[in-house]
Amino acid sequence: MKNKAITPRDVDFAKWYTDVIRAAKLADYSSVKGFIVFEPNGYAIWENMQKILDDKFKELGHQNVCMPVLIPESLLMKEAELIEGFAPEGAWISKAGGKDLEERLMLRPTSETLFSDYYASHLQSYRDLPKLYNQWCNVIRWEMETKPFLRSREFLWQEGHTLHETKEEALSETLQMLGVYRWFFEEILAIPVLTGRKTEKEKFAGAEITYTIESLMYNGFSLQSGTSHFFGQKFAKAYDIKFLSRDNTLEYPWQTSWGVSTRMIGAVIMVHGDDNGLVLPPNIAPRQVVVVPIGNEEKVVETTNKLLSLLKDAGIRCFADFSQKSAGFKFAEHEVNGIPLRIEIGNRDLEKNIITFARRDTREKINVSLDHDLIAEVKKYLKDIQNNMFETAKKRNEQKTYICDNLDQVKTIMQNNPGYVKALWCGDEACELKMKEIRGTKARCIDEKHKVDKNGKCVVCGRHAKYMVVWGVQY
Amino acid sequence: MKNKAITPRDVDFAKWYTDVIRAAKLADYSSVKGFIVFEPNGYAIWENMQKILDDKFKELGHQNVCMPVLIPESLLMKEAELIEGFAPEGAWISKAGGKDLEERLMLRPTSETLFSDYYASHLQSYRDLPKLYNQWCNVIRWEMETKPFLRSREFLWQEGHTLHETKEEALSETLQMLGVYRWFFEEILAIPVLTGRKTEKEKFAGAEITYTIESLMYNGFSLQSGTSHFFGQKFAKAYDIKFLSRDNTLEYPWQTSWGVSTRMIGAVIMVHGDDNGLVLPPNIAPRQVVVVPIGNEEKVVETTNKLLSLLKDAGIRCFADFSQKSAGFKFAEHEVNGIPLRIEIGNRDLEKNIITFARRDTREKINVSLDHDLIAEVKKYLKDIQNNMFETAKKRNEQKTYICDNLDQVKTIMQNNPGYVKALWCGDEACELKMKEIRGTKARCIDEKHKVDKNGKCVVCGRHAKYMVVWGVQY
Repeated sequence: MKNKAITPRDVDFAKWYTDVIRAAKLADYSSVKGFIVFEPNGYAIWENMQKILDDKFKELGHQNVCMPVLIPESLLMKEAELIEGFAPEGAWISKAGGKDLEERLMLRPTSETLFSDYYASHLQSYRDLPKLYNQWCNVIRWEMETKPFLRSREFLWQEGHTLHETKEEALSETLQMLGVYRWFFEEILAIPVLTGRKTEKEKFAGAEITYTIESLMYNGFSLQSGTSHFFGQKFAKAYDIKFLSRDNTLEYPWQTSWGVSTRMIGAVIMVHGDDNGLVLPPNIAPRQVVVVPIGNEEKVVETTNKLLSLLKDAGIRCFADFSQKSAGFKFAEHEVNGIPLRIEIGNRDLEKNIITFARRDTREKINVSLDHDLIAEVKKYLKDIQNNMFETAKKRNEQKTYICDNLDQVKTIMQNNPGYVKALWCGDEACELKMKEIRGTKARCIDEKHKVDKNGKCVVCGRHAKYMVVWGVQY
Repeated sequence: MKNKAITPRDVDFAKWYTDVIRAAKLADYSSVKGFIVFEPNGYAIWENMQKILDDKFKELGHQNVCMPVLIPESLLMKEAELIEGFAPEGAWISKAGGKDLEERLMLRPTSETLFSDYYASHLQSYRDLPKLYNQWCNVIRWEMETKPFLRSREFLWQEGHTLHETKEEALSETLQMLGVYRWFFEEILAIPVLTGRKTEKEKFAGAEITYTIESLMYNGFSLQSGTSHFFGQKFAKAYDIKFLSRDNTLEYPWQTSWGVSTRMIGAVIMVHGDDNGLVLPPNIAPRQVVVVPIGNEEKVVETTNKLLSLLKDAGIRCFADFSQKSAGFKFAEHEVNGIPLRIEIGNRDLEKNIITFARRDTREKINVSLDHDLIAEVKKYLKDIQNNMFETAKKRNEQKTYICDNLDQVKTIMQNNPGYVKALWCGDEACELKMKEIRGTKARCIDEKHKVDKNGKCVVCGRHAKYMVVWGVQY
C-alpha cells in the first residue's frame, strides 16, 4: 500500500521530498517569500536535536548567550572576507522607529562579528580563557533558490564561538566539535558521515581551516551538514581582541566557530524517508512508539492503557491513538509521520495472548507474546531500528562511493547515479571549476588520512596530485 | 560589608539596577544601539524560565512552532489597530539579496498577523480545533528609551496563539494562561502579582480584552509582567480564518494570544535584589548551592567533594568553588551572583563536626551538624528561602498599597513613596490622562472582584465611578 499523497522517491526525488514534508506536517511555505513555517511535527524534531546537542555542549563546558539579531555595517566591514562572503545574501534595515537610520544594519547571517566585538571589550587576561560561548538563534541569508530545511532565507541553528590561549587549544576545540557533530549524526540521527577539511575555495569566508561533516542523501546527492572552523588570529586582529598573557604581554587569542542547523531535519528526511513518508530514528523521534487499539472492547482499551503507562514509566516517548479513524487510516498516518514503532492491540490477538509490533524502518510485523517483558522488547526493537537505519544508510553510501582516475568516469557516474567520487586533485582551483561543470560537482572534503604517492595524478589536469578529495553533487 | 561596585538601591535605584546587571554579569550593552548581549549568567536564568514554562504549556496541550521573523507590510495592514499600535516601533527591510524589495518587510514586533495568515490557509473543520500553538523567539520593537531586560529593541519571549470553536473556550484559555503566569511568578519567581483586566486605553492593540499580571518593584514602581489577550473574532475576520462548524456552516473561530518575556529577569532583579547584588529564588536559580572549601586541607576537600556528589545525586543544582581566590572574595562573588545558599566547609568547623550554611536572602549564617541529614537540611533551607522571598515581597507590596479617594493623596504618594494606589474611576479616558500627569501613573488593572457601590466617585473627576482600579507608576 503506497501513500497516494507522496510521489515515489525514485520517480521524482525533489517532489517526493516536498510531498513528505507536507504529508508529515513538518513545515509549510509562508506568505513571506523564501521563508517557511516550522509546524509542530517539524519543530518537535528540532527541539530534540537542540536538547541533545545542548546537553553535550554544556557537558564540554560551553555556555549559552544571546547576541543581537542586527549587525551595524561598520562592524561587518572590519573583516573583509566575511563581508564579501555574506554581503550578496544580506538583508538590510535602513529605517526603524519612523526614522532613517544613520547606519544600515544587517540581519545576522552568522555572528562572528558580534562575538568578536563583544570579546574585544570583555577579554582581559589569560585567566578569562578559554571563552566557550554558544547561541541558539535564527539567521537570515537571502538565498535565491530555496528548499524547505535545506536552503531557506531564515533558518535556525546554533553557532559556537570560542577563544583560546594557544593555537593548539583552538585547533583541538575545532576538531572536538567536529567529533561531537559526527557522534550526533551517527549515534542520534543514524546518518553515517564523512568528515574532513574543505578546500580553500569551499571553506567559510574568513576561516583559516574549515572542517565539515558531509552526508549522502538517498538520491546520491551530497549535503554539507555541519562545519567547524579554525580562524587562527584573523578575527582577533580585525576586531582587536587582546589579552594579557602569562608573560605579561598583550596577545591575540585563537578563535573557532562551529554550527549545525535545521538543515539536519532535511538530512533525516532524505537519508531515511521512503515512499510511505518520514522514517525517524528512535533516538531523535519526538514520539518513539504509538499504541493503536483495534476496536474498543474493554480488554483492548485496558491493555492499551496499561502498556502506555508502562512505556511512559520506562521513559519511552509514546502515545496511544484512541481516535475514531479506521485502523488502516491510523496506520498510514503514523507511518507518514515516521513513528519508529507501532504497537497494535486487537481482540483476536489478545485471545492468542499476543500483540503486534510494526517496525517503521522495515515495515515488518512481529507477534509478541504478552508473557514477555514488553518494555524490554520495545527497547530492543527501538535499538534495533536505530542500528538498522544506520547500517542501511552506511551500506548505501558504500555502494554509492566510487574511485575515479579520469573525468569521463566522473561524468558518467555523476550524470547517471551520483554519489561520492574519490579522486586525486592537484590543488588548483581551475580543476575544481572544471569539476563543477559536471552537474555542479564540488569537493566535499579532503581525505587527510590518504597520503598521495608520488605517481598520483590530478583527475582533471593529470598533473601531480596533492590531495585525495571526495567529490559530490551538491544540494 | 557592602559591594563597592554597586550603588546602594536606596540612593539611586536606576543606577543600582544597572550596577547589579553588570556586577552579576547578566547582560551588557552591545555595539548595536538599544540592543543588549545576554551573557551566560543572564541567559541561564532565561533557559530555566523557558524550561519550566514550556513544560507547563505542553502539559496543557500546547505545541511549539516557528513563524518567520519578517512580516510583509500588506499582511500587517489587514488589521488596522495592530498596525497602528506597532508601526511607530517598526524596523523595516527594504533591501535584501542586493535588490530593492517589491514590498517592505517588518521585523516581527509580535506575530498575530503571521499566525492568523497561517491559520487562514490551514484551518478547515471544527475537528482541527482547538489550535494551541506557541513559539519562543526574538521580537523587535524600536523603543526610544531602553533599559536592559525591561525595554530593549530586541527581546526574547514566548507568544502563544490559539484558536477555539467557541467564545467560552477562548475566554477560558485566556484566563487559564493568565493563571499559568500567576503560578509561575508566585511559585517559581517568588513574585506576588496582581492580575486583572486592562482598561481600553492600556489594552493590547487589536485585543477585545487584555488581562495582565502586574508586579511591584522594590522602589514601588509597577511592571507589566505578562499579558493574556482575548481577540474575539477580530483577527479571524481581518484574515479570513474560517472553519466548517458542526452545523456544516462556515464560522469564524475565537482567538487568544499570551506572552511573557525576558523582562521577567528584570522583575526578579528589582523585586529581590539588594545592595550586595542579585538574589535569586531557588526555584529559578541556575545554581542553587555553592560549596566553598576554606583552605585545602585533605579533610576539607574530601568533605566538599562528598557533599557535592550527594547534592548532585539529589538533583540540586550545585557546584564547588575550588578557585585560588580568598574566601572573602569568593563569598562576595557568589553573593553578587545571587546564589541562594552557600555552604562553607572549613577545618575549624569540621573539628567541631559542623559546616556553615549562609543564606543569600537574609545573609544569616547557620551552623549545621554533620550528623544531620545534610540533603534534607539543604532542601529545607532552599524551600525556606523561596518562601521567605515571596513573603518579604508580599509584605512590601502590602505596605506599598494605598487606598485613595482624592487626587492630592495620589500625588503625595506617587511623588514620595510610590506603590499601588487603589482608587475608583469613572471609566473616562480623560481621567486616565489626568492621572498620567502624576509621574506617568497608569491604570495597572481593573479589580473586577470589587463591586463599586452607587455612591462611589471617580478619584479624578468626582463623577459616578464604574471601576475600582489599581494605579501605579509605570516602568
